[in-house]
Amino acid sequence: MSNLLKRWNELAEIKDELAARDWFPGTSGNLSIKVSDSPFSCLVTASGKDKRKRTDEDFLLVGADGTPLEETPLKPSAETGIHLEIYRLTDAGCILHVHTVDNNVISALYAEQGEITFRGQELIKAFGIWEEDGELTVPIVENHADLKRLAKEVGRVITPQTKAVLIRNHGITVWGENGFAAKKHLEALEFLFSYQLKMAILGRLSSDPEFMKTIHA
Amino acid sequence: MSNLLKRWNELAEIKDELAARDWFPGTSGNLSIKVSDSPFSCLVTASGKDKRKRTDEDFLLVGADGTPLEETPLKPSAETGIHLEIYRLTDAGCILHVHTVDNNVISALYAEQGEITFRGQELIKAFGIWEEDGELTVPIVENHADLKRLAKEVGRVITPQTKAVLIRNHGITVWGENGFAAKKHLEALEFLFSYQLKMAILGRLSSDPEFMKTIHA
Amino acid sequence: MSNLLKRWNELAEIKDELAARDWFPGTSGNLSIKVSDSPFSCLVTASGKDKRKRTDEDFLLVGADGTPLEETPLKPSAETGIHLEIYRLTDAGCILHVHTVDNNVISALYAEQGEITFRGQELIKAFGIWEEDGELTVPIVENHADLKRLAKEVGRVITPQTKAVLIRNHGITVWGENGFAAKKHLEALEFLFSYQLKMAILGRLSSDPEFMKTIHA
Amino acid sequence: MSNLLKRWNELAEIKDELAARDWFPGTSGNLSIKVSDSPFSCLVTASGKDKRKRTDEDFLLVGADGTPLEETPLKPSAETGIHLEIYRLTDAGCILHVHTVDNNVISALYAEQGEITFRGQELIKAFGIWEEDGELTVPIVENHADLKRLAKEVGRVITPQTKAVLIRNHGITVWGENGFAAKKHLEALEFLFSYQLKMAILGRLSSDPEFMKTIHA
Repeated sequence: MSNLLKRWNELAEIKDELAARDWFPGTSGNLSIKVSDSPFSCLVTASGKDKRKRTDEDFLLVGADGTPLEETPLKPSAETGIHLEIYRLTDAGCILHVHTVDNNVISALYAEQGEITFRGQELIKAFGIWEEDGELTVPIVENHADLKRLAKEVGRVITPQTKAVLIRNHGITVWGENGFAAKKHLEALEFLFSYQLKMAILGRLSSDPEFMKTIHA
Repeated sequence: MSNLLKRWNELAEIKDELAARDWFPGTSGNLSIKVSDSPFSCLVTASGKDKRKRTDEDFLLVGADGTPLEETPLKPSAETGIHLEIYRLTDAGCILHVHTVDNNVISALYAEQGEITFRGQELIKAFGIWEEDGELTVPIVENHADLKRLAKEVGRVITPQTKAVLIRNHGITVWGENGFAAKKHLEALEFLFSYQLKMAILGRLSSDPEFMKTIHA
Repeated sequence: MSNLLKRWNELAEIKDELAARDWFPGTSGNLSIKVSDSPFSCLVTASGKDKRKRTDEDFLLVGADGTPLEETPLKPSAETGIHLEIYRLTDAGCILHVHTVDNNVISALYAEQGEITFRGQELIKAFGIWEEDGELTVPIVENHADLKRLAKEVGRVITPQTKAVLIRNHGITVWGENGFAAKKHLEALEFLFSYQLKMAILGRLSSDPEFMKTIHA
Repeated sequence: MSNLLKRWNELAEIKDELAARDWFPGTSGNLSIKVSDSPFSCLVTASGKDKRKRTDEDFLLVGADGTPLEETPLKPSAETGIHLEIYRLTDAGCILHVHTVDNNVISALYAEQGEITFRGQELIKAFGIWEEDGELTVPIVENHADLKRLAKEVGRVITPQTKAVLIRNHGITVWGENGFAAKKHLEALEFLFSYQLKMAILGRLSSDPEFMKTIHA
């Protein structure tokens, strides 16, 4: 099986699984997977599809500037530029962007802080953090209708440790060295967001300072 | 494949998907899809069926006055008149009416305001609203046991921008130019309702005025 | 197909569907369906099974006193007596008993009132209540380890209008003239319980007296 | 079918079911099942797998000291020592360790108490507790990066009645005499945790002292 086909199937399987969880509401969300490093190419979701269906037109191959590498009536996702910026800055092999109610609520609650940090949570081991006092930080950027500006904002907050960026009321973008790692990171973060919100609903964040950052705003 | 059969299958597939989400509790909810414009005809759900099953009797063809266009022991949904009113006033090609806990709670919380408006939410792009300061408004009408009166009330609040109407404690009715668009709008709205409620539970609406309208009542 | 086999399949299908929703946690819950009126017989779930599996030993036929009508190593559900009491007092053709988090929380919150009443909710139409000011009441009884006493307590609160009884921290028992109706009633009630709890979490019950009974305790 | 294969399939089926509920977020969680008593051997999950897939490399056979009993490139779960400690101290035949948002939130809320106790809940019958005033206690231990220390801490709180231990922000470990019993216990506990949290969100724990222990912290 060619590398292109392997990557296609790897991404299609992830798309199926995330779609089954309803993480692409209203055709939102987009995914990509790197196919080759030099010259750079990646498969990225075509724009505006219902991601609960699996078709031969779900992805298209684009180059480093986002131009399709084959003739096609399909358009790459409008947010392809964000993916390309992340590939440029990190060792990502696969990038997933999804909206969940909880990641959007977290993005709004912590927007003013500019980040959310998790400590003392077993699930951060999904990011290879095994130390007793390890912590995981996810930066949060403002949303912009201008997608080039948004791509730059996302790039601006990425450090060598960053594996995910929240955009205010615009979901999460998360990555890993391959599809498996990207999905692992995404699942762990969604778990942590839901946990955090339940603790917030219970009014338990501010009274437990050792545990995780309080909601400032 | 005939146009009638294509529309039937389009609607059946949407019904399956919404039923899998349990959006037709207690046989509630109804769906329709336009088959022809002149003379007008549409497929509409038969009354009182368990929408988790897929059968040959799920829909029936009715004309502009709601009369079945073929001899049938089936009765069109009691709320067919609401569908016909929306087809009359808009360019809808498909109309979906579902009950979710969250759309019903929103309908009650915002009933006195008569509407709910979303701003600064990426998901409103599902409605073709791409501007940075774009907003989406869903009108809310009171429920009436008299379904003719209810159909008129729904028609009364529809403007050219309207794609959905909430009925107090009676779910949402949402539409689009075809099944794909109607489902896209529905998914986006359910996401926004759930988001809104979680923010309300966190007590975050009134303190964040730039973000979306506060709960007045 | 024999009547017995038809009823078996009807009940098995409902069991599958409720199990898929995880409404039988920890092998809890039980179901029955009437097979004949005179002499009375019904199929009832065997005790202690994982209801997510479908087997030939899921149900057994019992008579009016709960004794198996065939030789079998299976034991009828320990709560068969509650089913028999309901068949004796009503026109039920099928009875479903399930635990959900929300029906248990409602049973605890409203236990002191002895009932919960819904008004102004479209979903009560699932019970054939179409009037604008119609209302639906579900009685709530205390739980007892003595299952004979519990069966009597359930019987004591049943009126001709009753279609369901909540037992405090012991789920709901709901019925209908057949499997279809019983499931319809159950789905509608679970919806209403979840709605009610979300409104309670939002602190909206006491400030909205026209809407439904407030939480007294 | 050999005993080994039977146990493999028993565990694989449970893994599938728990995975379908998303109870292994980010490759977290681990499972084991006893194969023989003397010499002791059990199947345990291989480290770092996506538990939503079913493969021939999901489990491996280990002895009483955790060493694989066959040559294999696979590594047993890093938390195998916790399983072995439980097999050593109890009559467990199967052990399940999963993360859910609710079990983690409970583990944090009740960590200072060191345990959570349920009373007056029908679902505790899943543990064979049928008395009217029966109660079920789940101890809670602190989390440790040092997994040997963690295994000892878990062992330290186990009494003859214990069927589950919560680890602070590190999920639940639950067991039973076989796979069926372990899953039954797990489902019942997850139900009780979710119930408890909803009551806590409604602010109903402290005002209802007869019902279950209040949140102390």
